Amino acid sequence: MNKKAVILLSGGLDSTTCLAIAREQGFDIFALTINYGQRHTLEIESAKSVVKNFDVVKHSVIDIDLRQFGGSALTADIDVPKDQSESAMNNIPVTYVPARNTVFLSIALAWAETLGAYDIFIGVNALDYSGYPDCRPEYITSFAQTANLATKAGVSGKEFNIHIPLIDMTKADIIEKGANLGVDYGLTSSCYDPHKNGDPCGHCDACILRLKGFREACIPDPLNYRN
Amino acid sequence: MNKKAVILLSGGLDSTTCLAIAREQGFDIFALTINYGQRHTLEIESAKSVVKNFDVVKHSVIDIDLRQFGGSALTADIDVPKDQSESAMNNIPVTYVPARNTVFLSIALAWAETLGAYDIFIGVNALDYSGYPDCRPEYITSFAQTANLATKAGVSGKEFNIHIPLIDMTKADIIEKGANLGVDYGLTSSCYDPHKNGDPCGHCDACILRLKGFREACIPDPLNYRN
Repeated sequence: MNKKAVILLSGGLDSTTCLAIAREQGFDIFALTINYGQRHTLEIESAKSVVKNFDVVKHSVIDIDLRQFGGSALTADIDVPKDQSESAMNNIPVTYVPARNTVFLSIALAWAETLGAYDIFIGVNALDYSGYPDCRPEYITSFAQTANLATKAGVSGKEFNIHIPLIDMTKADIIEKGANLGVDYGLTSSCYDPHKNGDPCGHCDACILRLKGFREACIPDPLNYRN
Repeated sequence: MNKKAVILLSGGLDSTTCLAIAREQGFDIFALTINYGQRHTLEIESAKSVVKNFDVVKHSVIDIDLRQFGGSALTADIDVPKDQSESAMNNIPVTYVPARNTVFLSIALAWAETLGAYDIFIGVNALDYSGYPDCRPEYITSFAQTANLATKAGVSGKEFNIHIPLIDMTKADIIEKGANLGVDYGLTSSCYDPHKNGDPCGHCDACILRLKGFREACIPDPLNYRN
């Protein structure tokens, strides 16, 4: 029997590649999608399409309405910035959702402990951690320590590992890796502010980073940016 | 203007006393109740009654259905143990909910960061931490470190404090303290498995600890155990 792993799967490019990497490493996949009231609920649909494409043991979609708290362009009534300069993108962006990865990882931990899984994958990467504090390796290390103190599993000598396979990869590296593992990026969704028909806007930070990644990887992005 | 604090309020005896202590310390209170699919939803109603009795700025009730994961007598179809011996109560009980306090604290952190609050209160105490790993002081310290790495606030030099004012108190101490601060314990709910009319069972671990506490504090418990 393979080891079990919980994979945080948003339905975006990074988490989908992360899932493919966990599968390549031989884990049985328990995919976890968190519907936190983000503007781009299309992501949830993408996550469902992605798991159909992979050999996933179970997919859980957990609802938690962080919109009650507000505080981010992704969950509150703040405009998603478009066509920003690189320098503006080096600050913490308004699309930062307070404590999001801590909420996500804690829910993943709850499921993992219940399953008897000691491996959790999250697709954070270096491109993000200049902007988002909860994408830095030192944060992930600290969360793992907390997880091991928090749980019955940790107390009884098991150790939780938080895997961050994308951490040192550029967007182009991630896309190349995923393409080699058979990821269909046409199923993934990255845009913060998609058109009503689901097509990406092509102008938010997420679209800009994604397009640059595909360009540098010399792979065409299967999504339709013409609308 | 007072400093703001987020208080995790289950509607039980401990968290209600914790709220009263935060108020006594001069904080403006933002009470957070998490409906995680626990058997004893009566707690949610108790939390609503408690906040009416205090000068609370806002009360948020956040739903997150941990029942999807199972794994605890409080969320899955496992019997709540009754009239257990003290030695059985020294092991990790089946009422342990995997990673519960990590999920709760991470949601509190998300709200706190949005509010610009740097103080979070949680009513964990020594009577619990022999059984629940996520009630130990070393766990709380580790969570605070993670919180400060996780957040914009932490990165910009602010520091989150996780207050655990009940940690070294016995149940009797907690009840005496709360009584002095005007807590109406008739509004609180502790039972893991109450009768249909809301009256406590009197036989689960939570009832046994509560009754012992009132007895030792020489204060009558206003709840009705006769049904």
